[in-house]
Order: sequence, then C-alpha cells, then structure tokens
Amino acid sequence: MERKTANQTEAVLTEIVLPNDTNVLGNLMGGRLLHWMDIAAAISSYRHSKRTVVTASVNNVSFNKPIPLGSIVTLKAKISRAFTSSMEVFIDVWFEDKKEKGKKQKCNEAIYTFVAVDQEGNSIEVPEIIPESKEEKERFEGALRRRQLSLILAGRLEASKASELKALFLKQ
Amino acid sequence: MERKTANQTEAVLTEIVLPNDTNVLGNLMGGRLLHWMDIAAAISSYRHSKRTVVTASVNNVSFNKPIPLGSIVTLKAKISRAFTSSMEVFIDVWFEDKKEKGKKQKCNEAIYTFVAVDQEGNSIEVPEIIPESKEEKERFEGALRRRQLSLILAGRLEASKASELKALFLKQ
Amino acid sequence: MERKTANQTEAVLTEIVLPNDTNVLGNLMGGRLLHWMDIAAAISSYRHSKRTVVTASVNNVSFNKPIPLGSIVTLKAKISRAFTSSMEVFIDVWFEDKKEKGKKQKCNEAIYTFVAVDQEGNSIEVPEIIPESKEEKERFEGALRRRQLSLILAGRLEASKASELKALFLKQ
Amino acid sequence: MERKTANQTEAVLTEIVLPNDTNVLGNLMGGRLLHWMDIAAAISSYRHSKRTVVTASVNNVSFNKPIPLGSIVTLKAKISRAFTSSMEVFIDVWFEDKKEKGKKQKCNEAIYTFVAVDQEGNSIEVPEIIPESKEEKERFEGALRRRQLSLILAGRLEASKASELKALFLKQ
Amino acid sequence: MERKTANQTEAVLTEIVLPNDTNVLGNLMGGRLLHWMDIAAAISSYRHSKRTVVTASVNNVSFNKPIPLGSIVTLKAKISRAFTSSMEVFIDVWFEDKKEKGKKQKCNEAIYTFVAVDQEGNSIEVPEIIPESKEEKERFEGALRRRQLSLILAGRLEASKASELKALFLKQ
Amino acid sequence: MERKTANQTEAVLTEIVLPNDTNVLGNLMGGRLLHWMDIAAAISSYRHSKRTVVTASVNNVSFNKPIPLGSIVTLKAKISRAFTSSMEVFIDVWFEDKKEKGKKQKCNEAIYTFVAVDQEGNSIEVPEIIPESKEEKERFEGALRRRQLSLILAGRLEASKASELKALFLKQ
Repeated sequence: MERKTANQTEAVLTEIVLPNDTNVLGNLMGGRLLHWMDIAAAISSYRHSKRTVVTASVNNVSFNKPIPLGSIVTLKAKISRAFTSSMEVFIDVWFEDKKEKGKKQKCNEAIYTFVAVDQEGNSIEVPEIIPESKEEKERFEGALRRRQLSLILAGRLEASKASELKALFLKQ
Repeated sequence: MERKTANQTEAVLTEIVLPNDTNVLGNLMGGRLLHWMDIAAAISSYRHSKRTVVTASVNNVSFNKPIPLGSIVTLKAKISRAFTSSMEVFIDVWFEDKKEKGKKQKCNEAIYTFVAVDQEGNSIEVPEIIPESKEEKERFEGALRRRQLSLILAGRLEASKASELKALFLKQ
Repeated sequence: MERKTANQTEAVLTEIVLPNDTNVLGNLMGGRLLHWMDIAAAISSYRHSKRTVVTASVNNVSFNKPIPLGSIVTLKAKISRAFTSSMEVFIDVWFEDKKEKGKKQKCNEAIYTFVAVDQEGNSIEVPEIIPESKEEKERFEGALRRRQLSLILAGRLEASKASELKALFLKQ
Repeated sequence: MERKTANQTEAVLTEIVLPNDTNVLGNLMGGRLLHWMDIAAAISSYRHSKRTVVTASVNNVSFNKPIPLGSIVTLKAKISRAFTSSMEVFIDVWFEDKKEKGKKQKCNEAIYTFVAVDQEGNSIEVPEIIPESKEEKERFEGALRRRQLSLILAGRLEASKASELKALFLKQ
Repeated sequence: MERKTANQTEAVLTEIVLPNDTNVLGNLMGGRLLHWMDIAAAISSYRHSKRTVVTASVNNVSFNKPIPLGSIVTLKAKISRAFTSSMEVFIDVWFEDKKEKGKKQKCNEAIYTFVAVDQEGNSIEVPEIIPESKEEKERFEGALRRRQLSLILAGRLEASKASELKALFLKQ
Repeated sequence: MERKTANQTEAVLTEIVLPNDTNVLGNLMGGRLLHWMDIAAAISSYRHSKRTVVTASVNNVSFNKPIPLGSIVTLKAKISRAFTSSMEVFIDVWFEDKKEKGKKQKCNEAIYTFVAVDQEGNSIEVPEIIPESKEEKERFEGALRRRQLSLILAGRLEASKASELKALFLKQ
C-alpha cells in the first residue's frame, strides 16, 4: 500500500454565504459550516484512501469570527495522519468579507476523523501519510496526542498509559 | 435573572433521512447530523436565554452506528450548565430503523457550546441552570471538567491549574 | 393486532423559519407549513402502524396568525382515530416569536388522513387507537363525523345516511 | 375595480419529481405536492389581485394516485370566485409517467383560499371573477356552498342559515 | 416515427424568486436561471421524444435585465428543430415585477440542445418538428445556421463548407 | 487601477454529485452543472474586481461525458481577459469517478462573461488581466475573437468589420 504525501490529499471547497445559511444577525450558522467541513474532510479522505469513507468523529471546533452574508468561504482539508483504517483530517477555513474589499481572513480550524470502509461498512486499511511542510509535521506529531486523549475520553485507554498527555500535566 | 431547570430548556427535533442526506452506502452523512444537532442546540439555548445565540464550539462527537435512508431521527437537546454568557448543550440522538420495525436505538451523544449575544454580537449574561435528574446532575458536574480541558487546549489555562483534570492523571 | 394509546403515536417536530420559507411580508409561507405538517403526520402514522404510510387527504386547515422569520415552530402530531387501514392525524402548531421574548402561541390546527400500505402500495390494516385525555376523546368522537362528511363530499355516502351530520342540520 | 375572467388568473407550474421529493416507495410525498399547490395558488391569486397574498385555508384535498420518481407534474391554478378580500383557487394536477411513455393523467384536485393583504397584513378588497367556461361556472356556483360549509365548521355561521347546504340534507 | 408540431412540445414553468436565489443586489442569480432553463428545456425535449433526454449544449445566453426578489418568472420552452437524435430548444423568459404592479416583461431568450438517449446513454432517433407560426418557422430556419456555427467552433466542420454562414461574411 | 495576473483570479470549487443532482440515468443534470459554473465564475470575477458582479452571458457550453452519482466534481475558474467593465471567465471541469478508483478526467470547458456593477447596477471599470502561462495567453488572444462573434450575433457589430473572424471564412 503506497504512502501518500499530505499534499496529495488536499481538497479545496469554496462557498458563498446565502440567506438561508445565516442566523438572525445575518451571519453564517455554525451548523452549516460544520456540514461544509464534513464534505471537505470526506473528499480529502476519499482522495487519500480511494475508498468509501464515513465520519468517525469531530474533535473540538471553535467559532470565533462571525462570517457575514455574501462572504466567500474557502475550506482547505488535508489528512494530517493515518492510523490503520482511520484518517485525521485538518480543515482550515478562511473568508473574504465583501464589506472589507474581500480581505481574506482565517476564521476556523477543525479536526475530523474519517474511516475507510468496504461495501458492508467494515473498516479497511488505508495508506500512511508522509508529512512534508513544517505545519504538516507538527500536525502529524500532534495527531498521536489527540488520539490518546480521545481514547481516554472514550474510556478505551487508561490515562496513566497515555505517556504524552501525562507529561503535559506532570511537568508543571 | 431567574434560574431555569434543565428540563425547561429541552428541544426535540424529528427528521426523516432523505436521499440527499445519504452517502454512497445509503446512510446518513455525518455533516447533515452535525447540522441538525446545531439547530437542536440553538433552539435549546434560545429557550434558556431568550436571546440571540451563536455556536461557540463543538466538543468531541462520535459516530458509531450507521443510520439508514428512511430512518426517523430524533434529537433531544438540553442545557447541561451555564457559565456567565455561555451554555453547554447536550444533544442525544436516537433513530428508528424501518428495516427493524421502527425499533428505537440510541446512536449519538454530542456536546455543543453556545453563547448569547446582543444585536452587535457582544456576549451577554444568561440564567443559571438547575439540574434535577441524576443524569442532569452528572452532566452539570462534568461540564466544569470539560470547560477546563477546552481552556487548556485553547491555551487559556495552565494544565497545572486545572485541578479536576490533573487529579485524573495523577491518581494513577 | 395490539391497540395503542394516542400518546404512543405522538411526533414532535421543531423548525426555525429561515429566509427561504418566507413570503414578501417576511412571514412563513403556507405551503412550507403544509409540508412540515405532512412530515409530522407521516411520522406519527408510522409510529402507530410500523408500516409505510402515505398521505390520503388533508381536511380543512386554516391559517390565522402570521409567523415571522426567525420564529421557532413546534408541530405535535397524534393519531386521533384509526379506521381499518386509515389513520386520522391531528397536528397542533405553536410558534415562539423572537420579537416577543419567545412567547409560545398556538397558531394552527390541522387534520390529515394517512393510509398504511404494503410494498405494492395496497392498503393494510392498522391497530385501533385508545384515546385517554379529554381532548383525545373529543377528537376520537369527532373523527366519525368528519369521516361521514368526507365520504359525502366524495360522493361515496348519501347525505341521508350520515346520521350524525344530518342531526346537525335538522335540529335547528 | 375591474372584474377579471377566471382565465386571466391562470398559473401553470411544471415540476419534475426528484429523489428528495419521494417516500420509501419511490412516489411523490403528499407534503411536497401540497407545497407546490400552495405556490401555484399564490401566483394565481397574485395575478388576480396584483397584491401581496397569503394562504387563508386549504379545503379537503385527496391523494388517490401514486406519482412515481421522475414523473413530470403539471399544476394549473385558477381563481374560481372572489369574496371581498378572499379568493377561492382551484388547483388541478396531472402527471406524465415515464414508465407509461409519458401518458398524461389527472391525479389531484385541490381548493385553497387566499387573502389579499396590504403591507401591515390587513385584508384588502379584490376584483370579482367572471366565469366563462362550463367548468368555471360550476366551480363559481359551488364556491358559495363551500364557503357556507367552512363558516359552519369554523363556528361563524349557524347550520340552519346555510340554505344551500341544508337543502342537501333535507331533500333526502 | 410521427412528426410533431412545435406547439406539442411546449413546457411552461413558473417560479417565484426566493431569497436564496438572489445575489447581494437582491436580484436573481444567473446560475439559478440557467438551471430553471435547463429543466424547462428537458421537459420540452421529453414531451417531443418520449425518451430520456440529456443536455448536449447551451448556446449563447444573455442576461440583460435584473429580476428582483419576489418576482414571478415564467419560462416557456419549445423545440425549434430536431436533427436525428438532437433537439434544439428555445426558452423564452418573462418576469412580473411586484414593484411595478406585476407588469409582465420579456427578459431572456436562450437556446439549449438536448439529445435523446437509451438506457445505456446511446443517442437514439427523435421525430421531426413541424413549425407552424411565423416565429416557429424563423427559428426552424435559423437552427441550421446555428448548427453549422457550433460544428465549426467544435472543429467538426470546415468554415468553407458552412455555406449559409460563409455568405454572411462574404456578402459585405 | 492595478492589473492582475490570471492566476490571482482563480477560484476552485469541489462538489459531490448527490441524488437530487441526477437525472433518471443517475448522472449529473446539465442545469446543476451550469449553476455550479456560474458560482465559480462569479467568485473568480469578484476576486478580480473586488466589486459586485453579475452574469452577463454564457457562451457555448458542451456536455460530453456523463458524470455519475457520487462523483467528486472540481471546477476551476479564471479570468481570461477583461474589457472595460466585463470579464471573460474560463471554467474547466474535472470529475473523479468512484467506479474507476477516483481517476480524474476532464469533462467540460465553459466560458461565461461577468460585469462589475455598483450598488445601482451600473457597470464600472475593472483592472486588466496579465496572462502568464501558454494556455492563459491563448485564451487571452481568443477572447477578442469571441467578443467580435458575440457582438455580431447580438447585431451590434457588422460582420465585415470583424476582421479576425472574417479571415477565418475567407482564407479557405
């Protein structure tokens, strides 16, 4: 199974914020953005695995900047690391605000996990990821720590065995 | 500002899984469910605060069971705890599978955080929550631990000061 | 075939009125509400019959109060009575108007009739309904009168044989 | 206020039944058709009144024939009679079934009532209708009987004063 | 294969411009109108061929008048000429502007080409068209010239052999 | 007004073909693709002009390859040339077919023209385009010929004055 570079898995989506995507303040609703992120992550995971992929989990996502009606939203998704059949996907989001002459601003980062499955829905193996850029390498390293944390939260790993996470709390 | 019981903030949504909501395996896409959860949580937060609310963050959400085309999906959202202007919302999800004579199964749990804002988008105070049932009390307690964890992950709290979380790692 | 209480057939839907759901006055369009009512009634009939259900008819529905953009609309559907393969469903509708601090107001009542069908679309028998509350009992009684009226209007019953309806006109 | 012929108020809509419009049997859902009928009736009422119009009520609508996925559905709406500010609209529906070489079949008839309103939502007067064809004249006559019936059902007219309806029950 | 008159292939669509169909100036977006035109042309080609039809090409379409939110848009599609398996469809578009008391104005003309196909997607023969009105005859004649032009542009015909088009340039 | 390179105006959209986007053969409908192309072209023109843009016309678009349900469709739009207030946009389209292990194939090319407008809808000047790559230069040159052709077809230029086009017919 041939490894792929993070770059080969990139998916770019561009969306315009329409009236039905907005709340009463005229800004993009969080749920719509979560949906777009899921599609971006699904396409990226598909490009990596060339198999049917399904959403396994969504890690912490924050919404800091309101994105106004009419803005152009760009989502860039890339696999940060693959573990057997699961893929951690980073989604970076920017928007161009028409009121500010289309200045492009970073507004969100999210991490989704996808799993490759066969026609019966059983998980199947996916290629490994080769990180190249500095950012890709950092995200590749961080993926292990996030995986430990999510296994602990799900009760499938004892906190004492999550060596990387444990260090975080003990060193202080 | 009058406190409210968790029960007073309940929102129930029921949806049918239509063709456009499904992936190539004929199951509900994760992004659509995230969108529905966001709407359920928004209605619950609105019922609690009676103010405009916006999504602040999504905590870890897992997708374990495929939900087939034609299923009836029920989402129940309730505020677990309020912190000044933010509200932690639990969303529990069940589905009735037509192929199994409509047997109702629990399929997801998710935690979203919403913030109440005024017309300029500035955060404003919301009432406290009174948990009543055993589950409501557990979720109320857990909310503090989750808040510490998310503040650490966002770099706004030192791990050493997150006493509840620290205990989790040290006691073992 | 085991009888069910009206309560066991309840379906609750909650919707937010979005821009595309509104007319030029900024209020919910009647057609969108009719669509939501149909979904609520379909879910309720499914819960009663556990079979595929199809809309057979819509009785008189009135639209009295405009429901503004951004309102939260709650639909509650319940079977009032079952006749062999058909089910009469009552749908009650409330809305919470954001301009009035979310005050909940009753805005509509509608009656739909659904039929349970097999895979070829042939009608099949459904369980009877046990009304419990005062309202459920009144609606259960009224269902017979409404059925006579609709059979007359469809030319499938002579007016003189509709004893209940006839009394209504003669006694005056 | 110039009277108009029924013909001047005609609105024709043509829709294709797409996957998301269908139930699990692959036929058009009743709620979607009710929505289309409402749009057809709204356009017809607008053409008659040249004012903003809102749905006032839906009379009995029956669904007799299943309309399969991919069918072409034609809706023809026309005002049957105007009463001060309200307009009774007849909607006739046909479909062309692709499996039967596009044979056009009548499948539904529905009657909606619309009201013309000003910018504050107050009802305003509309022109009268001049029926021309045999069918238009029959529907024009029947409108009065239907109006009596709906006023009785709404409790705004005593059954004994609905002379036309009363005759229907007494003559037998 | 029985020839049909242009009139027998007519398809009429009526749409209301909703918020999500508009750009930031509050006018109908071009892409939405292109989509509606395609549906109108597909229904017309289906009525002519009684076979599955697919879009083959779109000729030059111009957008001259802005169509405001809330307008009623009428599309009339008719086959202008058939060539073996392809059909040239003219789509004429009008709108009724609510701000101008519903005055009906012509706003667009477009020409689409559709092809009739069998279940494997192979093109199949369609009946010829009999133009009747003056306009139908002009469009029938013009279809040949447009076909030559599009074959030249696609590199499938030498300009020197397109006698009708050549004349257009030489005579001057 | 600062000139821009063609590259600075690029817009990339990625879409998944969902059930409601397909015809009865299970392939993407032409109208949906025309809609997506319009959005891609609008974003590209906005990035070039930083002003509100509206669709002015669609040149000849061909549909050669059926794009099956579930395919990933990528649209890349770039300004080929700007003329005072109008911009010619090329849209290239590829799809990855799941049945062929996601092999990426070119499927369409289209040319749209957009105009930059102010708040009253009056056209306003836009920057010039600097073509860089071989393809960008060819498209930049061709834009003039296409503009002459469309002015002739619209009756706003005499064929004899369209020197570039004339040569095409005479030299043979």
